[in-house]
Amino acid sequence: MAVIECIANISEGRNPEVVERCAEAIRAVAGVRLLDWSSDAAHNRSVLTFAGDREPVKQAVLALFDAAVPAIDLRQHTGEHPRLGAVDVVPFVPIDGITMPDCVALAKDVAEQVARRHALPVYLYEEASANPARKNLEDIRRGEFEGLAAKMAKEGWAPDFGPAAPHASAGASVIGARMPLIAYNINLNTNRLDVAKKIASAVRHSSGGLRFVKAMGVDLADRGIVQVSMNLTNYEKTPIFRVFEMVRREAARYGVMVLESEIVGLVPNAALTSAAEFYLQIADFRAEQVLENKLRNDE
Amino acid sequence: MAVIECIANISEGRNPEVVERCAEAIRAVAGVRLLDWSSDAAHNRSVLTFAGDREPVKQAVLALFDAAVPAIDLRQHTGEHPRLGAVDVVPFVPIDGITMPDCVALAKDVAEQVARRHALPVYLYEEASANPARKNLEDIRRGEFEGLAAKMAKEGWAPDFGPAAPHASAGASVIGARMPLIAYNINLNTNRLDVAKKIASAVRHSSGGLRFVKAMGVDLADRGIVQVSMNLTNYEKTPIFRVFEMVRREAARYGVMVLESEIVGLVPNAALTSAAEFYLQIADFRAEQVLENKLRNDE
Repeated sequence: MAVIECIANISEGRNPEVVERCAEAIRAVAGVRLLDWSSDAAHNRSVLTFAGDREPVKQAVLALFDAAVPAIDLRQHTGEHPRLGAVDVVPFVPIDGITMPDCVALAKDVAEQVARRHALPVYLYEEASANPARKNLEDIRRGEFEGLAAKMAKEGWAPDFGPAAPHASAGASVIGARMPLIAYNINLNTNRLDVAKKIASAVRHSSGGLRFVKAMGVDLADRGIVQVSMNLTNYEKTPIFRVFEMVRREAARYGVMVLESEIVGLVPNAALTSAAEFYLQIADFRAEQVLENKLRNDE
Repeated sequence: MAVIECIANISEGRNPEVVERCAEAIRAVAGVRLLDWSSDAAHNRSVLTFAGDREPVKQAVLALFDAAVPAIDLRQHTGEHPRLGAVDVVPFVPIDGITMPDCVALAKDVAEQVARRHALPVYLYEEASANPARKNLEDIRRGEFEGLAAKMAKEGWAPDFGPAAPHASAGASVIGARMPLIAYNINLNTNRLDVAKKIASAVRHSSGGLRFVKAMGVDLADRGIVQVSMNLTNYEKTPIFRVFEMVRREAARYGVMVLESEIVGLVPNAALTSAAEFYLQIADFRAEQVLENKLRNDE
């Protein structure tokens, strides 16, 4: 059995009845587990996280669109968070027994069906997009729902599936595949925000650091310390331990030590066991040696 | 659902038909997974490893005794490995969703039923035994099948369950509960066996080291290196990372470095994630943050 995680973002965070209807549509699909859902009133946005094998996850996404598209009207929608459509963003994330190309295929399949069923334009993003200008979510979403009609008319912005103009009430959706995100923070034994900022700048991709790290320096004034707050966007290619060691080394250069680190939310097991392999210098380790994996995968 | 691992040792390693009958008895129990079984002709002994929830594992052990007791006659048995009975040793090991006291209760329950069903003396061992003189398997097994009648007649050696004299053909069995064993070796970047032996002596319990470590120095002559070969008998109380760091520090004292380490066979996932927690200095980490745990345990 494969496990795919899906994190659906819908443009409704103030009307609990609509959000509950969407959650129920997902829950009702056998073989899908709704792991978490939360609404933000200021953003007027909700995030629903669920998981399962290919077919159930696909059915759950289709059911979510069936529930959300008629219920959410972007013409009436305001909120702090940028958005393009009623069901704004849907990434598929490979967790276990499934590859990234499998998730890309799933994203394209779902995108095609959703576009047809609702006459809705759909953009592919991240790993599912072959177009470098349309991989990044921010690039696709720039201009938001209000600027969508003008954007779609421009060269290079025809959607991957569906009509060449926005859906009147539901706008457009962005569907794709990506690695799991790890929210990872390292707290430093100092109150010097400049040090946290310099370290963030050294480790993050955008300013010359590691390929799959986003980072910023943050003041934790109430604790009298500072933090390098990070998102790790591909823990296989840029593993946690390498990020930790780089931050530790950069901090030492300022006479600062790592106080502790923290993982916010969920982390794939392999991201932790790879750290154990690294520090314990384990040679020739195989995932089947983990007792729990053996119990699950045998027969 | 709880997961208990059971590692049954039977005194038959030369007649594949008998061993296959025992394996089949375990396999036939719904909810039990036979993970591994192997026979050693020189030892004339087989090890069958299986796992499942409480009730299925209990039924599998009862079925194993039903198959093995009539088929194995210790009066005809020879082999290099010390043994006391047809079904020689049966430990229950807590893996997931179950505590050590639960496994002790299970061991006592099974021991009582086996003793009654087969008129077989049963000794409890390790965590299941309250008697310090009868915790260690070697102490209980000393004298072997041939010396059993005399031993049982001695003060302090009445069995925990069953008759006060050996079963004519099946001897006696030892049933108990223990933590998972981790076979863990550290290879050193030197060919000096004296260094490996000194380090083994420093880290192992018996000569003053860590409570749950057994260790010896081994020459890997074909590779021109030496090894500290270890058994970690309680990875929660004496974690892998602490053993690794101690070996590393002791080696440095002789100008020697750790080349690599290796885990032989299976390792519980928590033994690896605890190393990640230690080296990455992760604060307030909870098992539910591991995505796979969340997927398994939700609902």
